[in-house]
Amino acid sequence: MTTGFFDAVPPATFEGPDSTNPMAFRHYNPDEVVMGKRMADHLRFAVAYWHSFAWEGGDPFGGQTFIRPWHPQDDMGRAKMKADVAFEMFARLGVPYFCWHDADIRPEGATFAESLDRLNQITDYFGPKMEETGVGCLWGTANMFSHRRWMSGASTNPDPDVFAYAAATVKGCMDATLKLGGQNYVLWGGREGYETLLNTDMGQELDHMGRFLNMVVEYKHKIGFKGQILVEPKPQEPSKHQYDFDAATCIGFLRKYGLEDEVKLNLEQGHAILAGHSFEHEIAVAATDGMLGSIDMNRNDYQSGWDTDQFPNNVPEVALVYYHILKAGGLGQGGTNFDAKLRRQSLDAEDLIAAHVGAMDICARGLKAAAAMIADGGLDEALNTRYAAWDTPEAQAMLGSDLASISDRVIAEGIEPQPHSGRQEILENYVSRFV
Amino acid sequence: MTTGFFDAVPPATFEGPDSTNPMAFRHYNPDEVVMGKRMADHLRFAVAYWHSFAWEGGDPFGGQTFIRPWHPQDDMGRAKMKADVAFEMFARLGVPYFCWHDADIRPEGATFAESLDRLNQITDYFGPKMEETGVGCLWGTANMFSHRRWMSGASTNPDPDVFAYAAATVKGCMDATLKLGGQNYVLWGGREGYETLLNTDMGQELDHMGRFLNMVVEYKHKIGFKGQILVEPKPQEPSKHQYDFDAATCIGFLRKYGLEDEVKLNLEQGHAILAGHSFEHEIAVAATDGMLGSIDMNRNDYQSGWDTDQFPNNVPEVALVYYHILKAGGLGQGGTNFDAKLRRQSLDAEDLIAAHVGAMDICARGLKAAAAMIADGGLDEALNTRYAAWDTPEAQAMLGSDLASISDRVIAEGIEPQPHSGRQEILENYVSRFV
Amino acid sequence: MTTGFFDAVPPATFEGPDSTNPMAFRHYNPDEVVMGKRMADHLRFAVAYWHSFAWEGGDPFGGQTFIRPWHPQDDMGRAKMKADVAFEMFARLGVPYFCWHDADIRPEGATFAESLDRLNQITDYFGPKMEETGVGCLWGTANMFSHRRWMSGASTNPDPDVFAYAAATVKGCMDATLKLGGQNYVLWGGREGYETLLNTDMGQELDHMGRFLNMVVEYKHKIGFKGQILVEPKPQEPSKHQYDFDAATCIGFLRKYGLEDEVKLNLEQGHAILAGHSFEHEIAVAATDGMLGSIDMNRNDYQSGWDTDQFPNNVPEVALVYYHILKAGGLGQGGTNFDAKLRRQSLDAEDLIAAHVGAMDICARGLKAAAAMIADGGLDEALNTRYAAWDTPEAQAMLGSDLASISDRVIAEGIEPQPHSGRQEILENYVSRFV
Amino acid sequence: MTTGFFDAVPPATFEGPDSTNPMAFRHYNPDEVVMGKRMADHLRFAVAYWHSFAWEGGDPFGGQTFIRPWHPQDDMGRAKMKADVAFEMFARLGVPYFCWHDADIRPEGATFAESLDRLNQITDYFGPKMEETGVGCLWGTANMFSHRRWMSGASTNPDPDVFAYAAATVKGCMDATLKLGGQNYVLWGGREGYETLLNTDMGQELDHMGRFLNMVVEYKHKIGFKGQILVEPKPQEPSKHQYDFDAATCIGFLRKYGLEDEVKLNLEQGHAILAGHSFEHEIAVAATDGMLGSIDMNRNDYQSGWDTDQFPNNVPEVALVYYHILKAGGLGQGGTNFDAKLRRQSLDAEDLIAAHVGAMDICARGLKAAAAMIADGGLDEALNTRYAAWDTPEAQAMLGSDLASISDRVIAEGIEPQPHSGRQEILENYVSRFV
Repeated sequence: MTTGFFDAVPPATFEGPDSTNPMAFRHYNPDEVVMGKRMADHLRFAVAYWHSFAWEGGDPFGGQTFIRPWHPQDDMGRAKMKADVAFEMFARLGVPYFCWHDADIRPEGATFAESLDRLNQITDYFGPKMEETGVGCLWGTANMFSHRRWMSGASTNPDPDVFAYAAATVKGCMDATLKLGGQNYVLWGGREGYETLLNTDMGQELDHMGRFLNMVVEYKHKIGFKGQILVEPKPQEPSKHQYDFDAATCIGFLRKYGLEDEVKLNLEQGHAILAGHSFEHEIAVAATDGMLGSIDMNRNDYQSGWDTDQFPNNVPEVALVYYHILKAGGLGQGGTNFDAKLRRQSLDAEDLIAAHVGAMDICARGLKAAAAMIADGGLDEALNTRYAAWDTPEAQAMLGSDLASISDRVIAEGIEPQPHSGRQEILENYVSRFV
Repeated sequence: MTTGFFDAVPPATFEGPDSTNPMAFRHYNPDEVVMGKRMADHLRFAVAYWHSFAWEGGDPFGGQTFIRPWHPQDDMGRAKMKADVAFEMFARLGVPYFCWHDADIRPEGATFAESLDRLNQITDYFGPKMEETGVGCLWGTANMFSHRRWMSGASTNPDPDVFAYAAATVKGCMDATLKLGGQNYVLWGGREGYETLLNTDMGQELDHMGRFLNMVVEYKHKIGFKGQILVEPKPQEPSKHQYDFDAATCIGFLRKYGLEDEVKLNLEQGHAILAGHSFEHEIAVAATDGMLGSIDMNRNDYQSGWDTDQFPNNVPEVALVYYHILKAGGLGQGGTNFDAKLRRQSLDAEDLIAAHVGAMDICARGLKAAAAMIADGGLDEALNTRYAAWDTPEAQAMLGSDLASISDRVIAEGIEPQPHSGRQEILENYVSRFV
Repeated sequence: MTTGFFDAVPPATFEGPDSTNPMAFRHYNPDEVVMGKRMADHLRFAVAYWHSFAWEGGDPFGGQTFIRPWHPQDDMGRAKMKADVAFEMFARLGVPYFCWHDADIRPEGATFAESLDRLNQITDYFGPKMEETGVGCLWGTANMFSHRRWMSGASTNPDPDVFAYAAATVKGCMDATLKLGGQNYVLWGGREGYETLLNTDMGQELDHMGRFLNMVVEYKHKIGFKGQILVEPKPQEPSKHQYDFDAATCIGFLRKYGLEDEVKLNLEQGHAILAGHSFEHEIAVAATDGMLGSIDMNRNDYQSGWDTDQFPNNVPEVALVYYHILKAGGLGQGGTNFDAKLRRQSLDAEDLIAAHVGAMDICARGLKAAAAMIADGGLDEALNTRYAAWDTPEAQAMLGSDLASISDRVIAEGIEPQPHSGRQEILENYVSRFV
Repeated sequence: MTTGFFDAVPPATFEGPDSTNPMAFRHYNPDEVVMGKRMADHLRFAVAYWHSFAWEGGDPFGGQTFIRPWHPQDDMGRAKMKADVAFEMFARLGVPYFCWHDADIRPEGATFAESLDRLNQITDYFGPKMEETGVGCLWGTANMFSHRRWMSGASTNPDPDVFAYAAATVKGCMDATLKLGGQNYVLWGGREGYETLLNTDMGQELDHMGRFLNMVVEYKHKIGFKGQILVEPKPQEPSKHQYDFDAATCIGFLRKYGLEDEVKLNLEQGHAILAGHSFEHEIAVAATDGMLGSIDMNRNDYQSGWDTDQFPNNVPEVALVYYHILKAGGLGQGGTNFDAKLRRQSLDAEDLIAAHVGAMDICARGLKAAAAMIADGGLDEALNTRYAAWDTPEAQAMLGSDLASISDRVIAEGIEPQPHSGRQEILENYVSRFV
């Protein structure tokens, strides 16, 4: 029995690369084995509940464009209808996971206690659906940025009552994530930052944020949650400056507050772009410190300057992302969450399915290309060649010595290094062969 | 006796705010006491040797525009003539300091040894001039980005010989800085980063950079250099990505490699802008961790996307910079180095003097406005009011507790925080009163 | 009798530069004569109804933060209450004008006819208030971007019914503007553009937009509206690309569709910034073609990449804006509309007044500085000197000649031009003297 | 007989898509027929003399990295050696065209007359080489931005002598282009703009630029040059603002000065990006007004903010470019000039060949994908469906009517338009099928 919402939309099945069916997978074949593992197990796709089911199509200059049977979203009955449609879509797409904020899945209550009760009700309602469809929870999180109470931050709020409210909210969401068998718990601090330094005590706010995150880790251990705790970098929007600016900033923060072994990163293409980085840069930074947790796959308009959260459509870019992920050992407990929303003019149920099918296919192509590059080994070989001179005992010994003795040697031996080609275009050509 | 270079330019003297003399100081009065200290001792101005005396006016689409008697810069005799003019300008402006790269002050030799010898010659030549004018060395640094040997990095180069050459170069520059009584030694890693991740081993490069910086610190202690070691954040240009992206990234790096008590930051307005931050943001970030070392004062075009290194001319912005510096305890051993260059159409000796006079005046106005805001106390008071609730024992106790007990309290007490105005416009109006 | 909304807020009066009263004008003194004209008549301030009274504090990541007695805004009674408060604020501030969209002042009706009827009701309600307060209408406009019907454009919509609806809407708003004695009618095409070229016929859409604007001009003449018709450039947001990208693009469009003598530009600082220009650039471009109509004064965060619509607070920037406006002959029938909104954390009535007081003061300082620069004449003199060689008969004759004869002359006379200093820093210092 | 420069580099031949030879073409097969025309005749590739043979590897922070036998470039003998190598490369690559500035191909002389004489000598030297290799001149242009005489502009210079020098220079270059059988003549105004409005008379400068371009057109007709005259938009760099900001700005300029039927546009990906546009946007804008002349194919880093001039490597982007070009009727007399330079670390002759081979292949793949989309017709069909309602007589009649009668009809018929999905993701999926 279906909700009827997708009835006019044809099923999404794998038809292979030659298919011209716009609603079919041409590349994503979950059971196909890539580098010894099912494609599905590499990619670990998740649908974002918020964009696909909670967002109504508004932008800063216009309101709702989508008209859905579960609108308005202020009623538990309609929250369940929304869940019915959501799980129907998860099943249609064959995604193994979904991700959620509390605010996506239950209407806000009149009090904290009522909101929490509703969260419990809706997660109870999810249980049998997850059982039936086999769809799991990749991660849960708390929306601590939309309601006006969060306008000046959650854990960094000048009002300790907001810190308390945030603590209670996260506890509730962690409990719910544990109950749903979630594999990760994510914190995104959209209002943890500032609008103006004129009214901000940055040092105090960072200390509070550091303490808060330590509380989260303590609570994880207390309740026996085995998932990863992840923070999500983004430089700005909604705040003028967010403390979790980018991967490097987050890692520095985690080190300062003693959390580097407890917390990893959930990285997003769009947020990487807004911080002035490529997605693969952020992945490489996190991987370098062993802190790659999970990814929010989307694409951001390079020129718009705000978070456009589009579905990915550029294979050459996506392939490099999965290349760096595979080199770092894969996504582990993390996954590929589509933090992507329809354009607000894409009104139809068909658009929602097609967008995910297209995005999953792009990721599958990217993964296959990445795996092929690894199998071929060309990039590794180029890297090894380029750095080979560091493998000598002399070079390693130098790292253990000091400026003065190195200087003596430079003068004595008349060292005058000759540069070698970086071969960037040749390596780009190499990649083009696979994408 | 003068070099003649500035003979047509009138002297730069303090004439007070009502002066209409374009070559006079209207605000910078070195001996005027602000917050109990001479203005000169607050600001600690330095002229950048490179922009004012070594740069010839080129840009990516055009070559030299300036014609100077010390061109071409490939001869020790002309290097001394350049020094004569430079010290004449320092004296005319009444700046207490200058800053230099090795490449600014001596022509490159045929070998490392010859380059080093020339560095020693020219610093010998500086000695009596410094004595005579009373002008000191704020900091020295090594140019490890212009010569083709550095094209793939200095300490992060795939070639260990380049690492060695870099080590020898920095040793030489540290020795020279010590000899000149320099108060700081700066490292800016313009090529420590990458052009493409395709040919880059980020983890290895960062480890080498971390080791290199540790060697620098070890050498500092070995030779008894009492100055500060500073690194200078910049996100990109010349490299696609530089490892010292911004203040937060540098601080994270220093913590990772155990350098957080040994190295501070030299912050630049233009580099802050390019990283997507305001200058005062970078200062606040550094100050929060006690790592504010010195500043490179300039201004960057907000829209050009590259390092324009213009002389500052916006008092409201500069005032906030000095406000945050004064709140952090002042510049200490650091100073205000003008990392600013003439526009390439500004051909005349008069332009060089006028640019510095104008910039020094802008800084003096900014400093006085900052001091007035501190004396008035309005911003502090607003901040204290905003965060006052955190001063209660209950709030502090909460920071020592845990999610579950806070959650219990939120439910038990029915906490529902009510937001308070952030008063941003009122605070901006307040600042406008002083600038 | 007041609405009570502002009762806790002290009156906004002129107290002079030495006042420390944060709610007083320190520079804006409406009757003070500057360059032979009252300050009020130069600046012609207008409050934007939308930001100050219709916007509820939402941003892309959060909902309403403001709580006002006229919420929710779906009722004619509350629309009148909103008008009462608005006119009370206009009177408190002493602004001569306000600006509005239809959607700001009346709730949407169930049909077009009902919406129009409500527009007529509310403008009837405005009449006596305008009479009583002496506040006039600077301009009216139609909101053709918020409702979902406009999601794919108004005059450029693929659906001719939307074009028709837009035509009817503009007619209604022009009628209302005429009725209110409006001095201008503005069109901003926030959805006249595209999200993706894949579904867009740019040529057809531009032709429709050109025809639409011609209809507007024809209707203006038909009804005897003496105001200016203005279009407002903005490059993007909400659309990926808006056809009215910047001043130069708009002027080209007006020429193409034969409208260059009928339509002028309403220029906004924030939109200029988003297009990669300074505000004074846009003013200079418009003035060069005699198309400077009016301004939307605000400031945009240089780094956020979206339309932040902040109140102006930087005198050096604002002074250059008014300098170029005064050089172009002043604002004429246009004015200084504050297209600026409170930060969403600025919850209080006091914030609303303070923001306008501060902004008006900044503009007044800018105007006075601009007038002083004009009186002094230094910039004009510098410009005349720089271009003086073009005033010779030989130079003018050359403009009437041809490449070959000029080339002959260059060879015959051995012309080798020597560059002269552009003196940018000296001119910047000059401006600093006045701001 | 070869120059020896490329002797170690294997030949670049077409080996088909399965080749793993990094120096072979996998897609570019010049004689393969696409849409009824040879691939070579669609793409009309040209090598840029400047990047490949004149640029020495410098950037704003570093000097020359390339070491070539024709360095230093100040001697006619070495200019001929450079030409020998260049033509050898053209032949190796099998490109039909090259493009040049005067400054690329001949050393500057001591006087204008000498520079012109050298230009004549070198173009004489080119003649037999062009004959022998069959390589033609796509376009010539004058470098009026590198020498210090141009620092304040060419035709817009405050000094009429510079205008004269520019006129003579362009005449010489047009003569040379005619002599070489060039198919286009290009003007790029890198210094036609301003650094600061403070020293700029924009109106006068634009008038001079308009007059200059009219002189160019007049001279073209006088000498019987049948090529296209093209201007090249770029928003900034080297100037703060360049008058030829983007396609729309150029078209407006051409209309203002009566040149819309005489001059077309040479569009560049990198310049489009810097102006905040996509490349296909600029092509669509030009095509809409029939002003698409030629393209400079490259890619710009989206985040660096300056002109990076990289070789293209992203098929999905390049495919859309050629799609819009094919829809506009193809490149006509224009071509695909690689305005792309090696990364400065790519030191070797092999890099130079590989970069072009890779870029040509990317373009060939893009062209084939574009042609396949056109053959399939899916995008056209979607467009036709979306705009179909405009094809009715009623819709067309409305365009001929007026606001009042349309408004009457909206009210009478109770028109309330219902939005339709824009189907962006479905169209993006469609494109993904082909790229």
